Amino acid sequence: MTARRTVFFVSDGTGITAQMLGHSLLTQFEGTEFDQVTLSFIDSVDKARECLARIEQEASKGNGQPVVFSTLVNNDVREVLRKANALCLDFFETFIGPLEAGLGLPSSHTIGRSHSAQNKQNYYDRIEAINYAMAHDDGATELEIDQADVILVGVSRSGKTPTCLYLALQFGVKAANYPLIPEDFDRKQLPRALRSRKSTLFGLSIAPERLTEIRGSRRPNSKYADLDNCRYEVEQAEILMRREGIRWIDSTAKSIEEIATTILRELRMERHLY
Amino acid sequence: MTARRTVFFVSDGTGITAQMLGHSLLTQFEGTEFDQVTLSFIDSVDKARECLARIEQEASKGNGQPVVFSTLVNNDVREVLRKANALCLDFFETFIGPLEAGLGLPSSHTIGRSHSAQNKQNYYDRIEAINYAMAHDDGATELEIDQADVILVGVSRSGKTPTCLYLALQFGVKAANYPLIPEDFDRKQLPRALRSRKSTLFGLSIAPERLTEIRGSRRPNSKYADLDNCRYEVEQAEILMRREGIRWIDSTAKSIEEIATTILRELRMERHLY
Repeated sequence: MTARRTVFFVSDGTGITAQMLGHSLLTQFEGTEFDQVTLSFIDSVDKARECLARIEQEASKGNGQPVVFSTLVNNDVREVLRKANALCLDFFETFIGPLEAGLGLPSSHTIGRSHSAQNKQNYYDRIEAINYAMAHDDGATELEIDQADVILVGVSRSGKTPTCLYLALQFGVKAANYPLIPEDFDRKQLPRALRSRKSTLFGLSIAPERLTEIRGSRRPNSKYADLDNCRYEVEQAEILMRREGIRWIDSTAKSIEEIATTILRELRMERHLY
Repeated sequence: MTARRTVFFVSDGTGITAQMLGHSLLTQFEGTEFDQVTLSFIDSVDKARECLARIEQEASKGNGQPVVFSTLVNNDVREVLRKANALCLDFFETFIGPLEAGLGLPSSHTIGRSHSAQNKQNYYDRIEAINYAMAHDDGATELEIDQADVILVGVSRSGKTPTCLYLALQFGVKAANYPLIPEDFDRKQLPRALRSRKSTLFGLSIAPERLTEIRGSRRPNSKYADLDNCRYEVEQAEILMRREGIRWIDSTAKSIEEIATTILRELRMERHLY
C-alpha cells in the first residue's frame, strides 16, 4: 500500500510560489502519494483561522501529520497557522531574516508583491509578448518577424508552440515559430524570411519514435504519424539545421520549462521571470 | 542614489524555482535595484566551480556581498558554492531535513525532478490543454466546447487570452474564451453555444479607463479604444453577466497569475501546478 499524506499550500497571494517550492521538495520523496490542497489569498487573521480549522480537520483523520508549505508575509497570519497540528514550513519566515541581515535593510512586509500587476510597463511588455506568440505561431505571418527575440524552427509537433507560449508568458520574450516542412527539405534551404535572422534562430529536434507517438495520438494511422515518415522528416530537418548553422536541442525527454530555459541560456538572454 | 546588489539564481535544473523564490523575497526590499543572473543546469562540481568564479568576480567589485538563491540537490555541488563570498540561501538544504524528519522518510536526492517530462500522461494532458486554448481562443470555434473546464467571457482586451493560456500551461486546465460583442448586448443574451455551459462560465470585467488605455496602445484614436465606447461595452457586459448569473471578477489591477488562481478557487478546481 502506498503511503498518503495531505499537503497544504497556504499563501496570502496566488499560492503559486508555495506550490512550486513545495512540489520541488515533494518530488524527492518516492513511494508517498500527496493529496494537495491550495489555500490562496489568505491575507487576514480570520481567513487564517478558517485554514487552521481545515488543517486540523485533516490532522484528526489520523493519516499522519499534514504538511503545510506557506508563503505568508504577515506575522499575525502566520501565528495562527503555527498552532496547527502539522509540519509547517514557511518560506518567507525562514529566509526574510537572513536576507534583511545580509542586505542591512528592513523588509516592507507588504502582502501581494509577487505576481503583481503594479508595474504597467512590465504588464504591457508581457501582454505584447503573448500577443506576438499567438500571431506568429506556426509560421502564420512574416510581418514583424524582425521583432522576434527568438524564432524556433523544427518539424511539426517538436514542441515549438508550447515553448513559444511559455517564453512569452513567463519571461516576456517575443518568440515566433516556423515549421520545417517537406518543401523546405526539397528546396534545401530555409524560408526566405528566416535567412536574415540567423542569430535568433533556434531549432528543436525530437526522436522519431517519440514524434510518431505524439502525432499518432492526434491523427492515428496517418502518413503524418507514420514512423518512417517521422524518421525522414527529423533526419532532413537536422541536415537542414546543420547546413544552415542553426543551434538545436533534442526536446524528446525535456519539459517545456527545460526547453525554454535551455534556449534562454544558449542565446545568452537574461530574462526576468514574471 | 539607489543601492544596487547582484543576485544569482543557481540551480541544478531550470532555475525557475530559485528565481520564483528569490523574486518573492526581493519584492520586499524597496529602494534597492537587483541585477539578476540566472545560472541553470549546474549539475556537477566542475560547473559549480565556474559559478563560484563568477560569483567571486562579482563580489570583488566591492558593490556589497552578492546574494545567491539556490536549489541544489547534490551536497558536493552545494559545498562548492558555499565557499563564495556571498549570502547563500539554499532552499533545498534548508527544508529537506525538516521534511525528511516530518515524513519519517529519506529523500532521494535526485537532480532534475521538478519540471520534468518523465510522466507521459501529464505531458500529454498539458500539451492538449495548450492546443485546446489555442484552438478555442476568441470564440474561434464551438467544436468540442463541451470539453472546456472553464469558458471565459468578457469584452475584447479584458484579459481572457493570457488567462486561458496561463491556465493551460501552468495548470493543464482546458480553457476556452468568448468575446462579448455589441451583437450579444443587442440580443440581450449569450451566444447559443454557451447557454448550456453555465457552470463553467466565468467573466472578466475591467475599468473602462484601463480598457481605453490598453486598446489605445494597439489602435489609437479608434472608436474601439474610445473611452465612451469602452464605458458602454463594459456596462453592457456587466448587465449581461448579471442577468445570466455569471460570476465575474474585475481584472483591472490583477496580474495574470492572480486572475487565473482566483478563477480556480471560485470554480473550486484543485489543480496541479506544472
